[in-house]
Amino acid sequence: MYRIGLDIGATKTKILLISPAGKILRREKILTDSFGSPDPIINRAGDSIEKLIAEEGLQKSQILGVGCGCAGFMDTKTGYIDISPNLKWFKVEFGKKFSKRLGMKIRMVNDVNAAAWGEFVYGAGKGKGIQHLVAVFPGSGIGGGIVCNGKLVEGATGTAGEVGHLIFRENGLLCDCGKRGCHEAYGGGMPMENRMRKLVKEGKSKLVLRMVKGDISRINTRTIADAARKGDKYAKMVWEDAVASLCVLCANLVSVFNPNILVLGGGVIEGNPSLVPVIRRFVKTHSVEYSARAVKVVKSALGGDAIALGAAAMIDADQD
Amino acid sequence: MYRIGLDIGATKTKILLISPAGKILRREKILTDSFGSPDPIINRAGDSIEKLIAEEGLQKSQILGVGCGCAGFMDTKTGYIDISPNLKWFKVEFGKKFSKRLGMKIRMVNDVNAAAWGEFVYGAGKGKGIQHLVAVFPGSGIGGGIVCNGKLVEGATGTAGEVGHLIFRENGLLCDCGKRGCHEAYGGGMPMENRMRKLVKEGKSKLVLRMVKGDISRINTRTIADAARKGDKYAKMVWEDAVASLCVLCANLVSVFNPNILVLGGGVIEGNPSLVPVIRRFVKTHSVEYSARAVKVVKSALGGDAIALGAAAMIDADQD
Repeated sequence: MYRIGLDIGATKTKILLISPAGKILRREKILTDSFGSPDPIINRAGDSIEKLIAEEGLQKSQILGVGCGCAGFMDTKTGYIDISPNLKWFKVEFGKKFSKRLGMKIRMVNDVNAAAWGEFVYGAGKGKGIQHLVAVFPGSGIGGGIVCNGKLVEGATGTAGEVGHLIFRENGLLCDCGKRGCHEAYGGGMPMENRMRKLVKEGKSKLVLRMVKGDISRINTRTIADAARKGDKYAKMVWEDAVASLCVLCANLVSVFNPNILVLGGGVIEGNPSLVPVIRRFVKTHSVEYSARAVKVVKSALGGDAIALGAAAMIDADQD
Repeated sequence: MYRIGLDIGATKTKILLISPAGKILRREKILTDSFGSPDPIINRAGDSIEKLIAEEGLQKSQILGVGCGCAGFMDTKTGYIDISPNLKWFKVEFGKKFSKRLGMKIRMVNDVNAAAWGEFVYGAGKGKGIQHLVAVFPGSGIGGGIVCNGKLVEGATGTAGEVGHLIFRENGLLCDCGKRGCHEAYGGGMPMENRMRKLVKEGKSKLVLRMVKGDISRINTRTIADAARKGDKYAKMVWEDAVASLCVLCANLVSVFNPNILVLGGGVIEGNPSLVPVIRRFVKTHSVEYSARAVKVVKSALGGDAIALGAAAMIDADQD
């Protein structure tokens, strides 16, 4: 059976049509611009999916279902989304509506849980007797996904794998979640950039200001890393905190899960791939020894397709 | 089928004969006194098991197998023990030898993994649609055990659930594992007591010295908690660090696993049961909101039988 995978991002939604063997047959990108309601995206994605199926000469009956990865808290079975902050969806019946519109089965998955499952089925964790995988994706925030005993761990209410909000430093920096000291407040891309912007505004880092030609909106994690390497005191503080946050997080996840593989992805890693060997070294020296020895620390193999592929593959996983 | 469960502790080994319905039919305690070799315990436990079976009027063929919980790093399938520090066993073929002696199937399990599985099958996590359970047992160290999707998580090499060695404070107190800042270095019973003893030896806590009538070997976690409540500055520091370590650990585990239930046990909890509501409140306010709402934080229901019962139940789990 064929499957459809969606990666519903804050600005764009990726749609993949996937063959029974897991090959991407067609891909489409549409605007998300949901403005607080899921209706526009349901209609537009519905049209696109029907077009993709027709173009491939398929019938709807040949599609096993549609897997949708998106950020937020949701009932993964019914597709009821309680909160998806970056889509500004609150208490929306996404799954039922979308399923009705398409006449297909919908499976919702938290975005980085989907990415972890995608990497497990098709990517860095494919084959080789791998049964346990941890994914850490620092992007705007820090997402995570966990596969144990060959199954995705979604937890009691679908919120397992929220690694960004593990406490890194007691009473530390305020996090967007309202609590203090989360890993995300230090190692998430957006908080890291905002922290740097605040320092630049306070006149504390002339170098960074010069690097972005006076436009602080252009500060990204690479700017911070570059300025830190050039010796800027404040950039160094922000960057070193971020590196420490990601290193400690990954070492702790390896200690508690004893995975075969730790997959790193997301914007912060894509923009700063030199973080991979840094995190690898830290994991090898700071995780529980037996787990440190067993784990492979690698970069995401699927990159931007991980979420949509993994969400689609969850339709099969549910039928096991 | 009947099963045998063993809890191999540093000084004593508990042996349970368990009915097909999970009822404890007979219990026996023998000395472990292994002096670095597993042979004495294999012989003594072998004799005891044969006696228990005979007394219950059973044949060996009616026993499904023997589950053995013990601390340390082991190949759970073959029963090869790489290191069990408190038993002083290094690279011993425990499983094969014991299986040969008894003519029965042996299943080794890390002790707190076994306890988690015991609580899941027979104890605090029994029934009620519970599929996800986390156990945190601060005793001498801090052990942990994880059940996800109804299966025990042993990881790639059987060392999953080593929650005591997650990093709590970067570059913090030296831990027995050789690394710095582990939760165990603050919240484990033995490190906590040793830290207090050192402070008393340095003349820093007259109150604690009086409480143990000058014998610092009598300092235990209750002494520390009591002295802290009475306002002793140093006992307060040690105790508050321990409480913070256990609170942060439990909150983090709830955030990452989104379990239905968090089970607290072990000597530190048994000696200081008032920790349970303290940890519960912290988890409810400091874990990821959706996971905090979903979780029940409870005390171990099986107490001292959890390890042996859980190890025995793993024989069934392997056959699923």
